[in-house]
Amino acid sequence: MTRLSELGESHIISRVLTGNPTSGNVIVGPGDDAAVTAPNGRLVSTADMLVENEDFTRDWLDWELLGRKAAAQNLADVCAMGALPHGLLVSLAVPADTDIASVEALYSGLIAEAERAGDELECTVPIIGGDLSSAGLIVVAITALGTVGETSAILRSGAQPGDSLYLAGTVGRAAAGLDLLFAGLRPGTAPPELSALITTQLAPRPDYGALLTLGAASAMIDVSDGLSTDLARIAAASGVGIDLDRALLQELIDPLLPAAEYVIAARADGAEVAPGPTVTADELAQSWVLDGGEDHGFAASALSSQCPGVGWRRIGEIRTGDDVSLDGTPVPTSGFSHFGK
Amino acid sequence: MTRLSELGESHIISRVLTGNPTSGNVIVGPGDDAAVTAPNGRLVSTADMLVENEDFTRDWLDWELLGRKAAAQNLADVCAMGALPHGLLVSLAVPADTDIASVEALYSGLIAEAERAGDELECTVPIIGGDLSSAGLIVVAITALGTVGETSAILRSGAQPGDSLYLAGTVGRAAAGLDLLFAGLRPGTAPPELSALITTQLAPRPDYGALLTLGAASAMIDVSDGLSTDLARIAAASGVGIDLDRALLQELIDPLLPAAEYVIAARADGAEVAPGPTVTADELAQSWVLDGGEDHGFAASALSSQCPGVGWRRIGEIRTGDDVSLDGTPVPTSGFSHFGK
Repeated sequence: MTRLSELGESHIISRVLTGNPTSGNVIVGPGDDAAVTAPNGRLVSTADMLVENEDFTRDWLDWELLGRKAAAQNLADVCAMGALPHGLLVSLAVPADTDIASVEALYSGLIAEAERAGDELECTVPIIGGDLSSAGLIVVAITALGTVGETSAILRSGAQPGDSLYLAGTVGRAAAGLDLLFAGLRPGTAPPELSALITTQLAPRPDYGALLTLGAASAMIDVSDGLSTDLARIAAASGVGIDLDRALLQELIDPLLPAAEYVIAARADGAEVAPGPTVTADELAQSWVLDGGEDHGFAASALSSQCPGVGWRRIGEIRTGDDVSLDGTPVPTSGFSHFGK
Repeated sequence: MTRLSELGESHIISRVLTGNPTSGNVIVGPGDDAAVTAPNGRLVSTADMLVENEDFTRDWLDWELLGRKAAAQNLADVCAMGALPHGLLVSLAVPADTDIASVEALYSGLIAEAERAGDELECTVPIIGGDLSSAGLIVVAITALGTVGETSAILRSGAQPGDSLYLAGTVGRAAAGLDLLFAGLRPGTAPPELSALITTQLAPRPDYGALLTLGAASAMIDVSDGLSTDLARIAAASGVGIDLDRALLQELIDPLLPAAEYVIAARADGAEVAPGPTVTADELAQSWVLDGGEDHGFAASALSSQCPGVGWRRIGEIRTGDDVSLDGTPVPTSGFSHFGK
């Protein structure tokens, strides 16, 4: 094991950026005071961080998957604007006694997820800059940059009554995975179908490629905090109501039932310090689908005559009003928030 | 006192962004999945973070000055490329029991420093996005974006033997301020001339406006880790040697002598847990000037016939070779590094 404290910063940077691609848009990459790139169109920028003990714990930590997740959550925000990713800036804080191999694994995960996005979207997504700092805990702060044509950014504010609501990717799987982690399961030891949910929590795989089959969407959002919360954001920004169709959500709920049964049984066994309320497996799986973010599915509204293509499933309708409902019954906004309500 | 944990994220964001300007380049500001802006030219991007117990301690913490410092160190990197700042992304992690007034003060500092840069450079520098997270300690991770003409980025790699070396702003003041903090002084109680040095440590004021009088520089760097370290970066990138002129540095050293005398006396009194080596005031002040970063002065090379204008002082020469010297004697690279060498 070689601790970071035994190495110089520039040596660490050159090691962890092994495998980082370049692109024709990069004029000056890592190594000067700042990067210089040539954006093609308008610039899309977003920043999001993962913090130890808030977003993950040492107990579950897989450095490569943490890198994948950090890249994914930022790339998803770029794509949710209808933009193509352009590059990443990575600010990493870790304890000085961290093994260089761990930091290399984290960057491998970042680079691999950026490559996956690039492959799906036929572009290259290099790490163009960042910062490395020592700290008492692990913080991965990413800025993702993207580009979009002058009139083609897809905002939260364009949904219209009469549009249908579509989802690319999944919702609820990462939330199920989180509850399985809380219940003591780990990816290596869990049954395969439960392990896959935990992996979605540890390293979601947004369906970036769905952007290519999106068609003419009126609004779009990266579902990171849960459908109930993120659709309420579209509702508020667009001045509309949204009705989810329980029957259309069923195929998202059903695959979560074994995990829900497992978590309920584990709670009954007292495996969790604070047991959840008594719920049925169906209720728990439904709550994951409605309130669970971190799969980074994309929710988009569009006229059904402009129906998106492969990768998109219809899950509801845009209507008049200002709230989110499920088969006409209001859905409380109970997704994730770092702070209180 | 109102703790963040009593408020919702969106409420916090809207409160802390009060006073944040917009600019004609901002198409979509904070509030969607990502910002959309219209960069004018090539894009310059840089990211840097400040971490509690590494870059500052609770004991010295002034939230407004912390915000100023976080903005300054990133804006300085943009300007050191010869670019105009375009916007900031701010990712902030703080404990959930933090007072909202503290976070408002931090953002006030960010906004004020961005406004100062904008005023000096005749542009507007809005906060265009970011993230707010709870965490066990305070982390401020900033991405600064800027724009530069197609051929006008000033890199570290262009210095040529025969160029003169110039400095805008100062070096050594922030390092003196840090040693005064370690010696137990605080801005409110220190004599004014020492207090000003501490304030430079807590909130440096880069001379952004010097960019306007720079002329045709061949290389430039933001001096953040110390002249010895940062000039060695220019030397390495340009394949040159750099000789500093002690006589020209004297006017940077002299104002630090009272602080050096104070620190040496405090060390002799055992005010510091680990006393420094025995040095004279002149030696200590010189080491601050050579090895102290965080004032965020700008060092630039240029032909003396292209001599920069107001705000720039000559401090040395570019020569053949590959090292940094002071009056011909090699200077060890002993500036700041987060990790070992």
